[in-house]
Amino acid sequence: MIRKRKPRILLTNDDGISAAGIQALYKAVKGIGDVTIVAPDSERSAVGHAITLSDPLRVNQLDKNIYSTTGTPADCVKLAVRAILKQKPDLVISGINLGPNTGFSVLYSGTVSGATEGVILGIPSMAISLGTFTKPDYTFAAQFARKIALMVIKKGLPKGILLNVNVPAVVKSKVKGVKITRQSKRAFIEKFDKRTDPHGRIYYWLSGEVIDLEGEQDSDIDAINQGYVSITPLHCDMTEYAMMEQIKEWYKSK
Amino acid sequence: MIRKRKPRILLTNDDGISAAGIQALYKAVKGIGDVTIVAPDSERSAVGHAITLSDPLRVNQLDKNIYSTTGTPADCVKLAVRAILKQKPDLVISGINLGPNTGFSVLYSGTVSGATEGVILGIPSMAISLGTFTKPDYTFAAQFARKIALMVIKKGLPKGILLNVNVPAVVKSKVKGVKITRQSKRAFIEKFDKRTDPHGRIYYWLSGEVIDLEGEQDSDIDAINQGYVSITPLHCDMTEYAMMEQIKEWYKSK
Repeated sequence: MIRKRKPRILLTNDDGISAAGIQALYKAVKGIGDVTIVAPDSERSAVGHAITLSDPLRVNQLDKNIYSTTGTPADCVKLAVRAILKQKPDLVISGINLGPNTGFSVLYSGTVSGATEGVILGIPSMAISLGTFTKPDYTFAAQFARKIALMVIKKGLPKGILLNVNVPAVVKSKVKGVKITRQSKRAFIEKFDKRTDPHGRIYYWLSGEVIDLEGEQDSDIDAINQGYVSITPLHCDMTEYAMMEQIKEWYKSK
Repeated sequence: MIRKRKPRILLTNDDGISAAGIQALYKAVKGIGDVTIVAPDSERSAVGHAITLSDPLRVNQLDKNIYSTTGTPADCVKLAVRAILKQKPDLVISGINLGPNTGFSVLYSGTVSGATEGVILGIPSMAISLGTFTKPDYTFAAQFARKIALMVIKKGLPKGILLNVNVPAVVKSKVKGVKITRQSKRAFIEKFDKRTDPHGRIYYWLSGEVIDLEGEQDSDIDAINQGYVSITPLHCDMTEYAMMEQIKEWYKSK
Protein backbone atom coordinates (compact mmCIF):
# COMPACT_ATOMS: atom_id res chain seq x y z
CA MET A 1 0.00 0.00 0.00
CA ILE A 2 2.11 2.89 -1.25
CA ARG A 3 0.39 6.21 -1.69
CA LYS A 4 1.45 9.82 -1.92
CA ARG A 5 -1.43 11.34 0.02
CA LYS A 6 -1.79 11.04 3.78
CA PRO A 7 -3.64 7.93 4.93
CA ARG A 8 -7.23 8.51 6.05
CA ILE A 9 -7.84 7.10 9.53
CA LEU A 10 -11.23 6.67 11.19
CA LEU A 11 -11.39 6.33 14.98
CA THR A 12 -14.27 4.96 17.01
CA ASN A 13 -14.76 3.30 20.40
CA ASP A 14 -17.41 1.98 22.76
CA ASP A 15 -16.58 4.02 25.86
CA GLY A 16 -18.01 7.13 24.19
CA ILE A 17 -16.49 10.19 22.56
CA SER A 18 -15.39 11.86 25.79
CA ALA A 19 -13.47 8.83 27.08
CA ALA A 20 -9.77 9.33 27.81
CA GLY A 21 -8.83 6.30 25.70
CA ILE A 22 -10.02 7.70 22.36
CA GLN A 23 -8.55 11.12 23.19
CA ALA A 24 -5.14 9.54 23.81
CA LEU A 25 -5.47 7.53 20.58
CA TYR A 26 -6.36 10.67 18.61
CA LYS A 27 -3.33 12.55 19.92
CA ALA A 28 -1.06 9.63 19.07
CA VAL A 29 -2.20 9.13 15.47
CA LYS A 30 -3.18 12.61 14.28
CA GLY A 31 0.36 13.19 13.01
CA ILE A 32 0.36 10.19 10.69
CA GLY A 33 -2.80 10.85 8.66
CA ASP A 34 -6.07 12.66 8.15
CA VAL A 35 -7.91 11.52 11.23
CA THR A 36 -11.68 11.61 11.83
CA ILE A 37 -13.45 10.55 15.02
CA VAL A 38 -16.99 9.16 14.79
CA ALA A 39 -17.88 7.74 18.19
CA PRO A 40 -20.93 7.07 20.37
CA ASP A 41 -22.13 10.05 22.44
CA SER A 42 -21.96 7.92 25.60
CA GLU A 43 -20.80 4.50 26.76
CA ARG A 44 -21.89 1.50 24.66
CA SER A 45 -19.90 -1.29 26.30
CA ALA A 46 -20.79 -4.97 25.88
CA VAL A 47 -23.15 -4.14 23.03
CA GLY A 48 -21.71 -6.94 20.91
CA HIS A 49 -21.90 -6.36 17.19
CA ALA A 50 -25.15 -4.45 17.53
CA ILE A 51 -26.63 -2.14 14.92
CA THR A 52 -29.61 0.14 15.28
CA LEU A 53 -32.51 -0.77 13.02
CA SER A 54 -35.56 0.23 15.06
CA ASP A 55 -34.55 3.79 15.96
CA PRO A 56 -33.34 6.71 13.89
CA LEU A 57 -29.71 7.72 14.37
CA ARG A 58 -28.49 11.23 15.02
CA VAL A 59 -25.07 12.71 14.30
CA ASN A 60 -23.60 15.70 16.13
CA GLN A 61 -20.59 17.46 14.57
CA LEU A 62 -18.39 18.71 17.43
CA ASP A 63 -15.44 19.93 15.38
CA LYS A 64 -14.23 19.87 11.77
CA ASN A 65 -13.32 16.17 12.00
CA ILE A 66 -15.07 15.04 15.18
CA TYR A 67 -18.59 13.61 15.33
CA SER A 68 -20.65 11.92 18.03
CA THR A 69 -23.65 9.72 17.22
CA THR A 70 -26.55 8.14 19.08
CA GLY A 71 -25.54 4.72 17.73
CA THR A 72 -23.32 1.79 18.63
CA PRO A 73 -19.67 1.48 17.51
CA ALA A 74 -20.82 -0.52 14.45
CA ASP A 75 -23.39 2.19 13.65
CA CYS A 76 -20.63 4.83 13.96
CA VAL A 77 -18.43 3.08 11.41
CA LYS A 78 -21.35 2.55 9.01
CA LEU A 79 -22.43 6.20 9.40
CA ALA A 80 -18.87 7.43 8.88
CA VAL A 81 -18.33 5.43 5.70
CA ARG A 82 -21.80 5.75 4.18
CA ALA A 83 -22.97 9.20 5.32
CA ILE A 84 -20.27 11.40 6.92
CA LEU A 85 -16.93 10.92 5.16
CA LYS A 86 -16.45 11.96 1.55
CA GLN A 87 -13.91 9.18 0.96
CA LYS A 88 -13.46 5.69 2.36
CA PRO A 89 -10.90 5.48 5.20
CA ASP A 90 -7.69 3.51 4.73
CA LEU A 91 -7.76 2.30 8.33
CA VAL A 92 -10.29 1.97 11.15
CA ILE A 93 -9.00 1.96 14.74
CA SER A 94 -11.44 1.22 17.58
CA GLY A 95 -10.35 2.08 21.12
CA ILE A 96 -8.40 2.53 23.25
CA ASN A 97 -10.80 0.54 25.40
CA LEU A 98 -10.83 0.78 29.18
CA GLY A 99 -10.40 -2.91 30.04
CA PRO A 100 -9.09 -5.89 28.07
CA ASN A 101 -10.98 -7.56 25.21
CA THR A 102 -9.68 -11.10 25.33
CA GLY A 103 -11.15 -14.60 25.16
CA PHE A 104 -14.92 -14.83 24.77
CA SER A 105 -15.15 -11.10 25.66
CA VAL A 106 -14.23 -10.54 22.02
CA LEU A 107 -17.76 -11.70 21.15
CA TYR A 108 -19.38 -9.19 23.54
CA SER A 109 -17.06 -6.29 22.84
CA GLY A 110 -18.28 -3.05 21.34
CA THR A 111 -14.66 -2.07 20.73
CA VAL A 112 -13.99 -5.16 18.64
CA SER A 113 -17.31 -4.71 16.82
CA GLY A 114 -16.18 -1.26 15.62
CA ALA A 115 -13.22 -2.94 13.93
CA THR A 116 -15.36 -5.86 12.70
CA GLU A 117 -17.66 -3.38 10.99
CA GLY A 118 -14.63 -1.79 9.29
CA VAL A 119 -13.65 -5.21 7.93
CA ILE A 120 -17.20 -5.92 6.72
CA LEU A 121 -16.99 -2.63 4.81
CA GLY A 122 -13.67 -3.73 3.27
CA ILE A 123 -11.33 -1.50 5.32
CA PRO A 124 -8.20 -2.69 7.19
CA SER A 125 -9.20 -2.45 10.84
CA MET A 126 -7.94 -2.97 14.36
CA ALA A 127 -9.23 -2.82 17.92
CA ILE A 128 -7.00 -1.76 20.80
CA SER A 129 -7.69 -2.23 24.51
CA LEU A 130 -5.86 -1.59 27.76
CA GLY A 131 -5.72 -4.45 30.25
CA THR A 132 -7.08 -2.65 33.28
CA PHE A 133 -10.34 -1.14 34.50
CA THR A 134 -8.76 1.08 37.16
CA LYS A 135 -6.30 4.00 37.03
CA PRO A 136 -5.69 3.65 33.30
CA ASP A 137 -2.54 5.15 31.81
CA TYR A 138 -2.95 5.19 28.03
CA THR A 139 0.55 6.52 27.25
CA PHE A 140 2.19 3.31 26.10
CA ALA A 141 -1.00 1.90 24.49
CA ALA A 142 -1.35 5.08 22.42
CA GLN A 143 2.29 4.92 21.30
CA PHE A 144 1.83 1.27 20.39
CA ALA A 145 -1.39 2.07 18.49
CA ARG A 146 0.55 4.57 16.38
CA LYS A 147 3.28 2.02 15.65
CA ILE A 148 0.94 -0.78 14.63
CA ALA A 149 -1.24 1.61 12.62
CA LEU A 150 1.84 2.55 10.57
CA MET A 151 2.62 -1.14 10.14
CA VAL A 152 -0.91 -1.99 8.96
CA ILE A 153 -0.89 0.99 6.58
CA LYS A 154 2.42 -0.26 5.14
CA LYS A 155 1.74 -4.02 5.07
CA GLY A 156 -2.06 -4.11 4.66
CA LEU A 157 -4.28 -6.85 6.04
CA PRO A 158 -5.92 -9.74 4.18
CA LYS A 159 -9.61 -9.24 3.33
CA GLY A 160 -11.92 -10.22 6.19
CA ILE A 161 -9.26 -10.04 8.92
CA LEU A 162 -8.92 -7.55 11.78
CA LEU A 163 -6.29 -7.21 14.48
CA ASN A 164 -7.33 -7.36 18.11
CA VAL A 165 -4.62 -5.67 20.17
CA ASN A 166 -4.49 -5.83 23.98
CA VAL A 167 -1.89 -3.83 25.87
CA PRO A 168 -0.81 -4.81 29.39
CA ALA A 169 -1.43 -2.21 32.08
CA VAL A 170 2.21 -1.64 32.97
CA VAL A 171 4.60 1.23 32.34
CA LYS A 172 6.58 1.10 29.09
CA SER A 173 9.79 -0.10 30.73
CA LYS A 174 7.94 -3.14 32.12
CA VAL A 175 6.44 -4.25 28.77
CA LYS A 176 8.21 -7.48 27.82
CA GLY A 177 7.48 -7.39 24.09
CA VAL A 178 4.81 -8.46 21.60
CA LYS A 179 3.11 -11.87 21.31
CA ILE A 180 0.97 -13.02 18.39
CA THR A 181 -1.83 -14.88 20.11
CA ARG A 182 -5.09 -16.78 19.73
CA GLN A 183 -8.42 -15.98 21.37
CA SER A 184 -8.39 -17.66 24.79
CA LYS A 185 -10.96 -20.37 25.46
CA ARG A 186 -11.02 -19.40 29.13
CA ALA A 187 -14.55 -19.18 30.51
CA PHE A 188 -16.30 -16.89 32.92
CA ILE A 189 -18.45 -18.39 35.60
CA GLU A 190 -21.25 -15.87 35.79
CA LYS A 191 -23.11 -15.25 38.98
CA PHE A 192 -26.23 -13.18 39.26
CA ASP A 193 -26.32 -11.06 42.36
CA LYS A 194 -30.00 -11.17 43.41
CA ARG A 195 -31.25 -8.05 45.19
CA THR A 196 -34.52 -6.44 46.22
CA ASP A 197 -35.28 -2.84 45.25
CA PRO A 198 -36.87 -0.30 47.68
CA HIS A 199 -40.29 -1.25 46.24
CA GLY A 200 -39.83 -4.94 47.12
CA ARG A 201 -39.14 -6.10 43.56
CA ILE A 202 -36.31 -8.49 42.76
CA TYR A 203 -33.55 -7.61 40.30
CA TYR A 204 -30.24 -9.15 39.25
CA TRP A 205 -26.75 -7.82 38.57
CA LEU A 206 -24.50 -9.83 36.30
CA SER A 207 -21.10 -10.53 37.83
CA GLY A 208 -18.68 -13.42 37.78
CA GLU A 209 -15.15 -14.66 37.77
CA VAL A 210 -12.69 -16.10 35.28
CA ILE A 211 -11.65 -19.75 35.46
CA ASP A 212 -8.08 -20.64 34.66
CA LEU A 213 -7.43 -23.27 32.02
CA GLU A 214 -4.41 -25.37 31.22
CA GLY A 215 -2.51 -24.99 27.97
CA GLU A 216 -3.25 -21.33 27.45
CA GLN A 217 0.34 -20.18 26.88
CA ASP A 218 -0.32 -18.80 23.40
CA SER A 219 -3.56 -17.02 24.33
CA ASP A 220 -4.41 -13.32 24.44
CA ILE A 221 -5.16 -13.36 28.19
CA ASP A 222 -1.91 -15.06 29.10
CA ALA A 223 0.14 -12.67 26.99
CA ILE A 224 -1.12 -9.55 28.77
CA ASN A 225 -1.01 -11.25 32.17
CA GLN A 226 2.68 -11.89 31.52
CA GLY A 227 3.32 -8.28 30.49
CA TYR A 228 3.30 -8.72 26.70
CA VAL A 229 1.27 -6.83 24.13
CA SER A 230 -1.13 -9.35 22.55
CA ILE A 231 -2.01 -9.17 18.85
CA THR A 232 -4.71 -11.62 17.71
CA PRO A 233 -5.79 -11.79 14.07
CA LEU A 234 -9.58 -12.33 13.99
CA HIS A 235 -11.89 -13.29 11.12
CA CYS A 236 -15.58 -12.62 10.49
CA ASP A 237 -16.44 -15.98 8.91
CA MET A 238 -17.79 -18.04 11.79
CA THR A 239 -18.31 -21.16 9.65
CA GLU A 240 -16.82 -24.29 11.22
CA TYR A 241 -15.75 -25.81 7.89
CA ALA A 242 -14.40 -28.95 9.57
CA MET A 243 -17.88 -29.88 10.73
CA MET A 244 -19.72 -29.48 7.43
CA GLU A 245 -18.93 -33.02 6.23
CA GLN A 246 -19.86 -34.48 9.61
CA ILE A 247 -23.38 -33.03 9.46
CA LYS A 248 -23.75 -34.21 5.87
CA GLU A 249 -23.16 -37.72 7.26
CA TRP A 250 -26.14 -37.29 9.63
CA TYR A 251 -28.33 -36.92 6.58
CA LYS A 252 -26.70 -39.72 4.60
CA SER A 253 -26.92 -42.26 7.42
CA LYS A 254 -30.65 -41.80 7.97
CA MET B 1 -25.98 -38.91 24.58
CA ILE B 2 -28.25 -41.63 25.90
CA ARG B 3 -30.27 -40.79 28.97
CA LYS B 4 -33.37 -42.16 30.62
CA ARG B 5 -34.85 -38.85 31.73
CA LYS B 6 -36.46 -36.40 29.34
CA PRO B 7 -34.04 -33.93 27.76
CA ARG B 8 -34.14 -30.40 29.21
CA ILE B 9 -34.64 -27.81 26.48
CA LEU B 10 -34.26 -24.04 26.91
CA LEU B 11 -35.90 -21.74 24.36
CA THR B 12 -35.06 -18.09 23.75
CA ASN B 13 -35.34 -15.61 20.87
CA ASP B 14 -34.77 -11.98 19.96
CA ASP B 15 -38.26 -11.10 18.71
CA GLY B 16 -39.57 -11.18 22.29
CA ILE B 17 -41.61 -13.64 24.30
CA SER B 18 -44.92 -12.87 22.61
CA ALA B 19 -43.62 -13.42 19.07
CA ALA B 20 -45.37 -16.08 16.99
CA GLY B 21 -42.04 -17.74 16.13
CA ILE B 22 -41.17 -18.80 19.69
CA GLN B 23 -44.76 -19.87 20.36
CA ALA B 24 -44.68 -22.16 17.30
CA LEU B 25 -41.29 -23.51 18.41
CA TYR B 26 -42.61 -24.20 21.91
CA LYS B 27 -45.62 -26.13 20.58
CA ALA B 28 -43.38 -28.17 18.30
CA VAL B 29 -40.81 -29.25 20.91
CA LYS B 30 -42.79 -29.44 24.16
CA GLY B 31 -43.54 -33.12 23.50
CA ILE B 32 -39.88 -34.14 23.28
CA GLY B 33 -38.56 -32.79 26.58
CA ASP B 34 -38.92 -30.58 29.63
CA VAL B 35 -39.10 -27.21 27.94
CA THR B 36 -38.51 -23.80 29.54
CA ILE B 37 -38.83 -20.44 27.79
CA VAL B 38 -36.66 -17.54 28.96
CA ALA B 39 -37.01 -14.74 26.43
CA PRO B 40 -36.80 -10.94 26.21
CA ASP B 41 -39.98 -9.08 27.20
CA SER B 42 -39.91 -7.21 23.86
CA GLU B 43 -38.00 -7.18 20.58
CA ARG B 44 -34.18 -7.20 20.80
CA SER B 45 -33.28 -7.61 17.11
CA ALA B 46 -29.82 -6.75 15.74
CA VAL B 47 -28.40 -6.53 19.27
CA GLY B 48 -25.41 -8.65 18.29
CA HIS B 49 -23.93 -10.66 21.13
CA ALA B 50 -24.82 -7.99 23.66
CA ILE B 51 -24.98 -8.50 27.41
CA THR B 52 -26.26 -6.07 30.03
CA LEU B 53 -23.60 -4.88 32.45
CA SER B 54 -24.67 -1.34 33.28
CA ASP B 55 -28.30 -2.00 34.20
CA PRO B 56 -29.92 -4.45 36.58
CA LEU B 57 -31.94 -7.24 34.97
CA ARG B 58 -35.48 -8.20 35.91
CA VAL B 59 -37.20 -11.55 35.44
CA ASN B 60 -40.96 -12.01 35.22
CA GLN B 61 -42.40 -15.52 35.66
CA LEU B 62 -45.44 -15.83 33.40
CA ASP B 63 -46.16 -19.53 33.91
CA LYS B 64 -44.55 -22.55 35.58
CA ASN B 65 -41.88 -22.81 32.87
CA ILE B 66 -42.16 -19.46 31.08
CA TYR B 67 -40.15 -16.35 31.96
CA SER B 68 -39.61 -12.98 30.33
CA THR B 69 -36.62 -10.77 31.14
CA THR B 70 -35.54 -7.19 30.55
CA GLY B 71 -32.31 -8.44 28.95
CA THR B 72 -30.96 -9.47 25.56
CA PRO B 73 -31.09 -13.06 24.24
CA ALA B 74 -27.57 -13.66 25.66
CA ASP B 75 -28.71 -12.27 29.04
CA CYS B 76 -31.74 -14.61 28.92
CA VAL B 77 -29.58 -17.70 28.42
CA LYS B 78 -27.15 -16.60 31.17
CA LEU B 79 -30.05 -15.86 33.56
CA ALA B 80 -31.72 -19.18 32.75
CA VAL B 81 -28.59 -21.24 33.38
CA ARG B 82 -27.16 -19.28 36.32
CA ALA B 83 -30.27 -18.03 38.15
CA ILE B 84 -33.58 -19.53 36.99
CA LEU B 85 -33.14 -23.23 36.14
CA LYS B 86 -32.26 -25.77 38.79
CA GLN B 87 -30.33 -27.92 36.29
CA LYS B 88 -28.34 -27.15 33.18
CA PRO B 89 -30.29 -27.59 29.92
CA ASP B 90 -29.26 -30.30 27.45
CA LEU B 91 -30.11 -28.08 24.47
CA VAL B 92 -30.64 -24.37 23.78
CA ILE B 93 -32.82 -23.39 20.80
CA SER B 94 -33.04 -19.72 19.81
CA GLY B 95 -35.85 -18.67 17.47
CA ILE B 96 -37.83 -19.11 15.34
CA ASN B 97 -36.69 -15.74 14.07
CA LEU B 98 -38.82 -13.59 11.79
CA GLY B 99 -36.35 -13.09 8.91
CA PRO B 100 -33.24 -15.00 7.80
CA ASN B 101 -29.91 -14.93 9.66
CA THR B 102 -27.42 -15.58 6.90
CA GLY B 103 -24.07 -14.14 5.79
CA PHE B 104 -22.71 -11.25 7.84
CA SER B 105 -26.16 -10.91 9.52
CA VAL B 106 -24.98 -13.78 11.70
CA LEU B 107 -22.66 -11.27 13.41
CA TYR B 108 -25.52 -8.83 14.14
CA SER B 109 -28.15 -11.41 15.03
CA GLY B 110 -29.71 -11.57 18.48
CA THR B 111 -31.14 -14.99 17.57
CA VAL B 112 -27.71 -16.42 16.81
CA SER B 113 -26.27 -14.78 19.94
CA GLY B 114 -28.77 -16.72 22.09
CA ALA B 115 -27.30 -19.94 20.71
CA THR B 116 -23.73 -18.60 20.94
CA GLU B 117 -24.28 -17.94 24.63
CA GLY B 118 -25.47 -21.52 25.07
CA VAL B 119 -22.25 -22.76 23.49
CA ILE B 120 -20.12 -20.48 25.69
CA LEU B 121 -21.89 -22.06 28.69
CA GLY B 122 -21.05 -25.53 27.34
CA ILE B 123 -24.53 -26.50 26.09
CA PRO B 124 -25.33 -27.89 22.61
CA SER B 125 -27.17 -25.02 20.91
CA MET B 126 -28.87 -24.01 17.71
CA ALA B 127 -30.49 -20.94 16.16
CA ILE B 128 -33.42 -21.23 13.77
CA SER B 129 -34.76 -18.52 11.47
CA LEU B 130 -37.43 -18.24 8.80
CA GLY B 131 -36.41 -16.65 5.51
CA THR B 132 -39.09 -13.98 5.27
CA PHE B 133 -40.10 -10.79 7.03
CA THR B 134 -43.70 -10.79 5.76
CA LYS B 135 -46.64 -13.15 6.26
CA PRO B 136 -44.60 -15.73 8.15
CA ASP B 137 -45.89 -19.31 8.33
CA TYR B 138 -43.85 -21.12 10.99
CA THR B 139 -45.47 -24.55 10.46
CA PHE B 140 -42.67 -26.24 8.53
CA ALA B 141 -39.87 -24.41 10.39
CA ALA B 142 -41.30 -25.61 13.71
CA GLN B 143 -41.55 -29.20 12.48
CA PHE B 144 -37.98 -28.98 11.23
CA ALA B 145 -36.81 -27.50 14.55
CA ARG B 146 -38.26 -30.53 16.34
CA LYS B 147 -36.54 -32.94 13.95
CA ILE B 148 -33.10 -31.33 14.21
CA ALA B 149 -33.47 -30.91 17.99
CA LEU B 150 -33.97 -34.68 18.26
CA MET B 151 -30.94 -35.22 16.04
CA VAL B 152 -28.72 -32.90 18.13
CA ILE B 153 -29.93 -34.56 21.36
CA LYS B 154 -29.03 -37.95 19.87
CA LYS B 155 -25.74 -37.08 18.13
CA GLY B 156 -24.46 -34.20 20.29
CA LEU B 157 -22.36 -31.34 18.97
CA PRO B 158 -18.61 -30.75 19.37
CA LYS B 159 -17.64 -28.27 22.09
CA GLY B 160 -17.70 -24.68 20.88
CA ILE B 161 -19.94 -25.33 17.86
CA LEU B 162 -23.53 -24.22 17.27
CA LEU B 163 -25.88 -24.87 14.37
CA ASN B 164 -27.37 -21.95 12.49
CA VAL B 165 -30.51 -23.15 10.72
CA ASN B 166 -32.37 -21.09 8.12
CA VAL B 167 -35.66 -22.34 6.70
CA PRO B 168 -36.95 -21.13 3.33
CA ALA B 169 -40.30 -19.35 3.40
CA VAL B 170 -42.17 -21.86 1.27
CA VAL B 171 -44.80 -24.48 2.08
CA LYS B 172 -43.54 -27.92 3.09
CA SER B 173 -44.25 -29.49 -0.31
CA LYS B 174 -42.00 -26.90 -1.97
CA VAL B 175 -38.97 -27.47 0.33
CA LYS B 176 -36.31 -29.15 -1.81
CA GLY B 177 -34.27 -30.68 1.04
CA VAL B 178 -31.43 -29.79 3.40
CA LYS B 179 -28.05 -28.25 2.49
CA ILE B 180 -25.04 -28.04 4.82
CA THR B 181 -23.68 -24.60 4.08
CA ARG B 182 -21.08 -21.97 4.94
CA GLN B 183 -21.71 -18.38 6.05
CA SER B 184 -22.12 -16.30 2.88
CA LYS B 185 -19.57 -13.57 2.22
CA ARG B 186 -22.23 -11.54 0.47
CA ALA B 187 -22.20 -7.88 1.50
CA PHE B 188 -24.84 -5.31 2.17
CA ILE B 189 -24.42 -1.88 0.71
CA GLU B 190 -25.87 0.28 3.44
CA LYS B 191 -27.52 3.54 2.71
CA PHE B 192 -28.55 6.04 5.30
CA ASP B 193 -31.86 7.67 4.55
CA LYS B 194 -31.35 11.28 5.72
CA ARG B 195 -34.49 13.01 6.98
CA THR B 196 -35.50 16.11 8.92
CA ASP B 197 -37.75 15.83 11.96
CA PRO B 198 -40.66 18.27 12.67
CA HIS B 199 -38.24 20.32 14.81
CA GLY B 200 -35.78 20.81 11.92
CA ARG B 201 -33.20 18.34 13.20
CA ILE B 202 -31.56 15.81 10.89
CA TYR B 203 -31.73 12.07 11.56
CA TYR B 204 -30.79 8.92 9.66
CA TRP B 205 -32.45 5.57 9.05
CA LEU B 206 -30.21 2.64 8.21
CA SER B 207 -31.31 0.80 5.09
CA GLY B 208 -29.54 -0.96 2.25
CA GLU B 209 -29.44 -3.72 -0.28
CA VAL B 210 -27.62 -7.00 -0.76
CA ILE B 211 -25.02 -7.40 -3.49
CA ASP B 212 -24.80 -10.69 -5.33
CA LEU B 213 -21.47 -12.45 -5.45
CA GLU B 214 -20.12 -15.19 -7.68
CA GLY B 215 -19.24 -18.63 -6.33
CA GLU B 216 -21.80 -18.64 -3.54
CA GLN B 217 -23.38 -22.03 -4.39
CA ASP B 218 -22.57 -23.58 -1.01
CA SER B 219 -23.65 -20.57 1.06
CA ASP B 220 -26.52 -20.18 3.53
CA ILE B 221 -28.20 -17.43 1.47
CA ASP B 222 -28.14 -19.41 -1.76
CA ALA B 223 -29.54 -22.51 -0.09
CA ILE B 224 -32.68 -20.78 1.20
CA ASN B 225 -33.07 -18.77 -2.01
CA GLN B 226 -33.18 -22.11 -3.87
CA GLY B 227 -35.76 -23.54 -1.47
CA TYR B 228 -33.45 -25.65 0.72
CA VAL B 229 -33.15 -25.63 4.50
CA SER B 230 -29.64 -24.32 5.31
CA ILE B 231 -27.65 -25.71 8.25
CA THR B 232 -24.37 -23.92 8.97
CA PRO B 233 -22.06 -25.08 11.77
CA LEU B 234 -20.59 -21.97 13.46
CA HIS B 235 -17.74 -21.61 15.94
CA CYS B 236 -17.00 -19.02 18.63
CA ASP B 237 -13.22 -18.89 18.18
CA MET B 238 -12.66 -15.96 15.84
CA THR B 239 -8.88 -16.45 15.73
CA GLU B 240 -7.51 -16.47 12.18
CA TYR B 241 -4.83 -19.08 12.91
CA ALA B 242 -3.48 -18.93 9.36
CA MET B 243 -2.40 -15.34 9.86
CA MET B 244 -0.56 -15.74 13.16
CA GLU B 245 2.74 -16.73 11.52
CA GLN B 246 2.44 -13.90 9.00
CA ILE B 247 2.25 -11.25 11.72
CA LYS B 248 5.17 -12.88 13.56
CA GLU B 249 7.17 -12.22 10.39
CA TRP B 250 6.37 -8.50 10.63
CA TYR B 251 8.20 -8.47 13.93
CA LYS B 252 11.09 -10.68 12.79
CA SER B 253 11.77 -8.62 9.65
CA LYS B 254 12.09 -5.34 11.52
